Amino acid sequence: MSDLKSRFIDVYGVLKQELLYDPAFEFDHDSRQWVDRMLDYNVPGGKLNRGLSVVDSYRLLKEGKTTDDEFFLSSALGWCIEWLQAYFLVLDDIMDGSHTRRGQPCWFRVPKVGMIAANDGVLLRNHISRILKNHFRDKPYYVDLLDLFNEVEFQTASGQMIDLITTIEGEKDLSKYSLPLHRRIVQYKTAYYSFYLPVACALLMAGENLDKHVEVKDILVQMGIYFQVQDDFLDCFGSPEVIGKVGTDIEDYKCSWLVVKALELCNEEQKNVVHENYGKVDPACVAKVKELYKTLDLEGAFVEYEKESYEKLTKSIEAHPTKEVQAVLKSFLAKIYKRQK
Amino acid sequence: MSDLKSRFIDVYGVLKQELLYDPAFEFDHDSRQWVDRMLDYNVPGGKLNRGLSVVDSYRLLKEGKTTDDEFFLSSALGWCIEWLQAYFLVLDDIMDGSHTRRGQPCWFRVPKVGMIAANDGVLLRNHISRILKNHFRDKPYYVDLLDLFNEVEFQTASGQMIDLITTIEGEKDLSKYSLPLHRRIVQYKTAYYSFYLPVACALLMAGENLDKHVEVKDILVQMGIYFQVQDDFLDCFGSPEVIGKVGTDIEDYKCSWLVVKALELCNEEQKNVVHENYGKVDPACVAKVKELYKTLDLEGAFVEYEKESYEKLTKSIEAHPTKEVQAVLKSFLAKIYKRQK
Repeated sequence: MSDLKSRFIDVYGVLKQELLYDPAFEFDHDSRQWVDRMLDYNVPGGKLNRGLSVVDSYRLLKEGKTTDDEFFLSSALGWCIEWLQAYFLVLDDIMDGSHTRRGQPCWFRVPKVGMIAANDGVLLRNHISRILKNHFRDKPYYVDLLDLFNEVEFQTASGQMIDLITTIEGEKDLSKYSLPLHRRIVQYKTAYYSFYLPVACALLMAGENLDKHVEVKDILVQMGIYFQVQDDFLDCFGSPEVIGKVGTDIEDYKCSWLVVKALELCNEEQKNVVHENYGKVDPACVAKVKELYKTLDLEGAFVEYEKESYEKLTKSIEAHPTKEVQAVLKSFLAKIYKRQK
Repeated sequence: MSDLKSRFIDVYGVLKQELLYDPAFEFDHDSRQWVDRMLDYNVPGGKLNRGLSVVDSYRLLKEGKTTDDEFFLSSALGWCIEWLQAYFLVLDDIMDGSHTRRGQPCWFRVPKVGMIAANDGVLLRNHISRILKNHFRDKPYYVDLLDLFNEVEFQTASGQMIDLITTIEGEKDLSKYSLPLHRRIVQYKTAYYSFYLPVACALLMAGENLDKHVEVKDILVQMGIYFQVQDDFLDCFGSPEVIGKVGTDIEDYKCSWLVVKALELCNEEQKNVVHENYGKVDPACVAKVKELYKTLDLEGAFVEYEKESYEKLTKSIEAHPTKEVQAVLKSFLAKIYKRQK
């Protein structure tokens, strides 16, 4: 593990201790232990890319010259994003009836947790407010941080809503699946919190006014959409050994970029193949959908999409007036361009 | 309906329209309709006491002299509390597996809603931030409002947590039930958001600094505890025709003031009666618990508690230096003293 990552993880320990001894609540042994275990189970176990990218971005904005105190604060904001992610995942897993997450049972599947997990999700969200209050209350950008987390959470929950209501059991209607719907789901459900939020946090810490960085937001949202298209592509065409899971988007009736693109490209006969086989657990149905994806050369369409996205993004980034912000955006793009996992 | 109440309800319509056309999200017809229906189903159907009390309290603080604009703003804050309540109730009903709420099926029991209700709960919480941003962003007390709602939400979720973890299925342990535990559950889960929050909102709107009103907070928290003890008492001893439901705290193994008081007063033999019969659906068991409550004269103990609480609260209120604040607190107390429902 890199030194940076291990220092980042140390900050988690500090934040957790503060939460476990938060004077706004009278903990006893059982409740403190519950929160302790809940946090360790749900917060730090991911790849931490979102959290670490706040630290990276802030450092790039300050041209590498940052103090220990700034490292701590940018890490704390990074951890707020990891907490936000944990909150979404705990609730998403309940809603989807999922079984595993990050290689272990979903939190609500753990014995004695069950539906208490919904309240734990709420607590995770509340911890963000506590962390921000503990460490940023006196900063001039405190109110902007609160507004930022609130707005991004609202957008994420709204994206989740359109995803959920377009796949309501018993009302599955493929004709609703289109590129604009896919773009809206992805932009709101994923792009804002995964791509825009980390950079926005770093910009606020660096004293920037977010209203003056609308183009940065647009670029990051576009990058987030591109990232999710890759995800959709890898779910079907990636190698399970590399991505670490077997994709089930076809079985799950997901509004994936692949099915949307397929519906766009196919003739009437092929459209029937999609309607008859998409969203079925039967491996024969899945195979038919995959075969159609190959016939329509969706791999080629994806390569084309990837190339175009990369070129557009690069052009937009190079049009940005300040080189530090360019460095942040290029660093994000480099991390995801042509990724295999 | 009073004129005040109907004007208050008009504000709901305005706030809802703003949310349905929030520029931070790209609604389409289906998603807008979903939120519209979800709000009407969950937000305005209660007694609105918490929301209305912001309007009342603000008016008392300003000695009755308030403008239409101030009526709207205090109503908006009142509605934020109603939204907060709706958010808690939607999630609580999922967690408790409840069937009805306010005389209709719980939201998650409505066809095609199901677990989407968890995300709707999140949306309800997010609407508070949107309402506050829409109407209070430029007020000097905006950041204090955000902090207030965040802290109270954190306390409520923490209270809910101790309530949930002390009644984990299969680990039911009556020996944990005590007055201090009951007080902590009630104080955090109910008192802060139902009693302190409305007055705190009114104080902020009136330009007050909440740090200087710690004694007001203490009084309201004590009143909230007294209110919940009444609730616990009425659940068993109230008349179902008056309170509008048949209490099931005994069957539900609730950490009620009655069982806690019974455990405090009873001898070893009577303690066995509680242990053997509390938390069972069997009406014979419920009857034995109720019989014990009568034997121990819990009605008498409650009358005593009510008298003491009233006297203490009155004394504390009269010790407060400003008559406007006194008027607010007295108005709250008058509404709940010796209530039958």
